[in-house]
Amino acid sequence: IAKEVAKLLELKAQLGGDEGKHKFVLKTPKGTRDYSPKQMAIRERVFNAIITCFKRHGAEVIDTPVFELKETLTGKYGEDSKLIYDLKDQGGELLSLRYDLTVPFARYLAMNKITNIKRYHIAKVYRRDNPAMTKGRYREFYQCDFDIAGQFDPMIPDAECLKIVHEILSDLQLGDFLVKVNDRRILDGMFAVCGVPDSKFRTICSSVDKLDKMPWEEVRSEMVGEKGLSPEAADRIGEYVQLHGGLDLVGQLLQDPKLSQNKLAKEGLEDMKLLFEYLTLFGIMGKISFDLSLARGLDYYTGVIFEAVLVQQENDHVEEAVSVGSVAGGGRYDGLVGMFDPKGRKVPCVGVSIGIERIFSILEQRLEASEEKIRTTETQVLVASAQKKLLEERLKLIAELWDAGIKAEILYKKNPKLLNQLQYCEDTGIPLVAIVGEQELKDGVVKLRVVATREEVNVRRETLVDEIRTRTCQ
Amino acid sequence: IAKEVAKLLELKAQLGGDEGKHKFVLKTPKGTRDYSPKQMAIRERVFNAIITCFKRHGAEVIDTPVFELKETLTGKYGEDSKLIYDLKDQGGELLSLRYDLTVPFARYLAMNKITNIKRYHIAKVYRRDNPAMTKGRYREFYQCDFDIAGQFDPMIPDAECLKIVHEILSDLQLGDFLVKVNDRRILDGMFAVCGVPDSKFRTICSSVDKLDKMPWEEVRSEMVGEKGLSPEAADRIGEYVQLHGGLDLVGQLLQDPKLSQNKLAKEGLEDMKLLFEYLTLFGIMGKISFDLSLARGLDYYTGVIFEAVLVQQENDHVEEAVSVGSVAGGGRYDGLVGMFDPKGRKVPCVGVSIGIERIFSILEQRLEASEEKIRTTETQVLVASAQKKLLEERLKLIAELWDAGIKAEILYKKNPKLLNQLQYCEDTGIPLVAIVGEQELKDGVVKLRVVATREEVNVRRETLVDEIRTRTCQ
Repeated sequence: IAKEVAKLLELKAQLGGDEGKHKFVLKTPKGTRDYSPKQMAIRERVFNAIITCFKRHGAEVIDTPVFELKETLTGKYGEDSKLIYDLKDQGGELLSLRYDLTVPFARYLAMNKITNIKRYHIAKVYRRDNPAMTKGRYREFYQCDFDIAGQFDPMIPDAECLKIVHEILSDLQLGDFLVKVNDRRILDGMFAVCGVPDSKFRTICSSVDKLDKMPWEEVRSEMVGEKGLSPEAADRIGEYVQLHGGLDLVGQLLQDPKLSQNKLAKEGLEDMKLLFEYLTLFGIMGKISFDLSLARGLDYYTGVIFEAVLVQQENDHVEEAVSVGSVAGGGRYDGLVGMFDPKGRKVPCVGVSIGIERIFSILEQRLEASEEKIRTTETQVLVASAQKKLLEERLKLIAELWDAGIKAEILYKKNPKLLNQLQYCEDTGIPLVAIVGEQELKDGVVKLRVVATREEVNVRRETLVDEIRTRTCQ
Repeated sequence: IAKEVAKLLELKAQLGGDEGKHKFVLKTPKGTRDYSPKQMAIRERVFNAIITCFKRHGAEVIDTPVFELKETLTGKYGEDSKLIYDLKDQGGELLSLRYDLTVPFARYLAMNKITNIKRYHIAKVYRRDNPAMTKGRYREFYQCDFDIAGQFDPMIPDAECLKIVHEILSDLQLGDFLVKVNDRRILDGMFAVCGVPDSKFRTICSSVDKLDKMPWEEVRSEMVGEKGLSPEAADRIGEYVQLHGGLDLVGQLLQDPKLSQNKLAKEGLEDMKLLFEYLTLFGIMGKISFDLSLARGLDYYTGVIFEAVLVQQENDHVEEAVSVGSVAGGGRYDGLVGMFDPKGRKVPCVGVSIGIERIFSILEQRLEASEEKIRTTETQVLVASAQKKLLEERLKLIAELWDAGIKAEILYKKNPKLLNQLQYCEDTGIPLVAIVGEQELKDGVVKLRVVATREEVNVRRETLVDEIRTRTCQ
């Protein structure tokens, strides 16, 4: 019987195995993607532009784990908390994947008792959101964050964050853009004078945040219907959130009989005035719009908030530009670090996050359209042979080149055809071929071929490295 | 009553809030760490050395998501599968954090039907292992992988992987090292001729893998006690796994009356001979040791396997060097991609993974001991003022510098003291100070101060950018 059972079990295992094979789904998880070498080449270009800017502003760099204790993230994201990825309880601590880089940064500051730092952090974050991958919206995506923490004189670091957004978006040549600016204190003051009860500030703020995706009528009905706001209060909000302008609008609102009586709003407006003076000195006011409909979803902002959007060119297709949306955003969050400090000590912070995935999407589409060919390697020379039985000689030569720091490849064949070796260079953009042959070996030379021009020249073996360096300018 | 209940609930919420505050644990998850700016500076140096080497060998770069479908990882890691982190089932797909970069690479190849690629991938992987963080063993850690996929002539790509290990460990100057090499076919052949039943090959292989951490006696008792191997078979294995050497040992084993009769072992030994010929041409046989006790834990290897260890210097402290262990490893896995292909099509692969965390630990300790000061920013110049009320002028000047690509900082104070500004340069290593003052503004100059020498020189504003570039060689 035991034997029969063993046989049957074996059969079952085989069946199970086959079934598994047929059902196997070959894909990445929903809302995520692989990066191919070509996509990586674009990604590295964008990262370089961003990192160069962050370093130009004197930022240090840090890194934190991809997951945090679940309680570290709890109560930081308001209504969006439902989008946090939790890890399975496999014994030990309860963990969640980071939702942004700001909360881990605040945790890092409190944990290490740092009261003063300017740092950037480029890493992936995770949100169980509805992905719209063609528009650059993923469940796993990069954030590129620059933050300034410390007790400083008002609006100087805030102005630098906006300067950074301006520099990066200009550098990347994504087309015209606009940076919308507002202040949570102005919003809260506005809610107060419109008759929103204190307890509803955050949830009404979330509704206002949807104004970039929904018309006012829908947002209004959410406020009144779902969130129980009085229709009169909603209508008063509706009037304010239409306003946008520059320094003039700040002046106008400082004269507003209701708003100017509200302490918070007044503080916010005075700071906005100062901010705009600094931005004028930076020469970037042309791209700035004070916009009372800007709310930003996250709970932790306490002062200035901002968001950069690409602006429709008149001759563009409407759908394309609209679909991209915000490409950078940020603001001031003076209370977040205090939430982690055992004694509640505050460290004021302001920061900006660059929405790199959307920028990738735009550049990828543009590159696709342009048919520009991107190299995905930096190889300077292919070590080739013209006859058979020269593998050993190729291996010896390529080791010499590698040891001299030359970027070199060979085909992994004992006896590759010269034509195939040249074709490989054409396909991958390798500019030079170092050809070893019987005669060259006897003469102590290597034949160096320039792929683009088909020019061939014999180079003495001891000068080959210098010759390759000169010809590839490295 | 409703009023009373509301009051009580409010009281409860307050209590709950306070309780929460007191119990709050301010830490990163077990086995993980933050990287401070100083640690990041070391990390970037190491990454640069590794990436430079990978690019020298013509590798492209890819990236994959941090999590995979759970089924993608199932059945690839043998006994280590219990160390995989699963995500919580929040509806939708079942996901796990990647355990290495090799399985995602194989999934990527099968999914995109790629039969030929040389790529590197640097990213974090996750293992619920017992961390030993002082020794550089974490639950979240970086892997730096280089792999060659494709049907090629034997041992040429395998030899290149070993050359890469040699180049990287030499470049990083970690001290003397040894690369142990073996072959799964030789191990399997050895198990067969020692009398291990086929079904026990993988589990006995796992036991052999522990020989670098346990004495033979313990490994033997695990084989016999836990895994039910006959004592005679274990003793025969015990004789083989003591052997290590070079080309001579390959020759000796090809003469071994039992082993040479085993088809698999013979194939492995013939290939090992070829590999050593290539490594001799590369000039690196001095650091290579053919070691029959090397097994590597992972299930998916099918041919050559290798592992690099740092070698004890005679004058070193024993504890320190021993604790570091393996700093690179890899091997051939010809069956893995086929496990993902719906039709089982195979893509032969060989690759190497650099154990970067252990390398960090060593370099960090060394740097700590040397008291060398590392800069964590690249700022070229601090824009300072000698008198009060010059914030606007500082902002105007720094915007000019940023727009010209100069790395510049200011203190975020309206009226900082000159001494504090100079001290900031001392602390952070900024080499130059551009000082604006009333007189300088009138004269159209900026006072440029060299921090190291205290030399001061007036520079015309229009030549300031060039002067800073020249003086900082950028």
